[in-house]
Amino acid sequence: MSDPANPWTIKSTRIAYENPWMRVREDSVITPSGKDGIYGYIEANNSVMVIAFNEKREVYVVRTFRYPVKTWNWEVPGGGGDNQHPIEAGKRELEEETGITAKTWDELGATSVCNGFTNETMTTLLARDLDFGGNKEDDVDEQVTDGKFCSLAEIDAMITSGDINDGQTMTALYLLNRWLARQER
Amino acid sequence: MSDPANPWTIKSTRIAYENPWMRVREDSVITPSGKDGIYGYIEANNSVMVIAFNEKREVYVVRTFRYPVKTWNWEVPGGGGDNQHPIEAGKRELEEETGITAKTWDELGATSVCNGFTNETMTTLLARDLDFGGNKEDDVDEQVTDGKFCSLAEIDAMITSGDINDGQTMTALYLLNRWLARQER
Repeated sequence: MSDPANPWTIKSTRIAYENPWMRVREDSVITPSGKDGIYGYIEANNSVMVIAFNEKREVYVVRTFRYPVKTWNWEVPGGGGDNQHPIEAGKRELEEETGITAKTWDELGATSVCNGFTNETMTTLLARDLDFGGNKEDDVDEQVTDGKFCSLAEIDAMITSGDINDGQTMTALYLLNRWLARQER
Repeated sequence: MSDPANPWTIKSTRIAYENPWMRVREDSVITPSGKDGIYGYIEANNSVMVIAFNEKREVYVVRTFRYPVKTWNWEVPGGGGDNQHPIEAGKRELEEETGITAKTWDELGATSVCNGFTNETMTTLLARDLDFGGNKEDDVDEQVTDGKFCSLAEIDAMITSGDINDGQTMTALYLLNRWLARQER
């Protein structure tokens, strides 16, 4: 096929696995090259990542344990969107994970998290005019054990050391850098 | 628990779904806050993304259809690692998708693709000293219908327009920008 809207034909579809956070959809398909086959992928709620950016041009990062990779690492706050508007989801995630509230919110971009495996879209948010007056949730399973503001140079060093290795955080930082470049024009 | 190596207790584990490209592992767990629960996530091979960078400081991008999101979009070449060494996987993916071979290869970093949902690690590779003498595979289901070199300003504009919305491509571009900043010091 030359270039149709969708070069795959879906013959049937089923939910092959489901838990409260994700669903595996498996489609029986005819592939673009004309063969019978399957395509299985994850259906998940959209998510947000929040760049909490203070007047010293520092970014707030949190230390958290990530079950699938079984390691602690530093990343920007974020999580599942629960089908809220991205900014509402960002306000909730930021306050729950850090106790930070913010007066000024901007959307920096919406990106596919992993477009071969999931339909999840992640919105990167910029939060400014920050205040620590919110309620951090301490008794949660997604443990955030530490949090701190870091300069962009410190974040660069944490990537070099491996303390930050989260691709979604790097996508968010990439969109922050684009935004900063526009401010400086 | 204060800060052990892994604050989750795994009571049992099972493969809840499997296809040739991924596996859903579901663990019965005791959560960090002491509750019985489950954690399901995707086990997948590691992957690579390739920044093919020419002497004019342009990046090669390909247009491809992504089944889970059901859209065509532009991204840097890459794909599943098939458990090869990242540079070997990068050479194969780049040649298959673009026909490009490269004399000089560097690893720019290894990142978690989506550390709440999968254990997949993506390695970003920088390929230089490029040549179009390789064999592009045309009869494949991951259709690459077009490819071109773009300046970093053109890529920025494609993100603004939505032609590039792939987070893994942005992670790779973030690591390219870090590498470029080091060259200019």
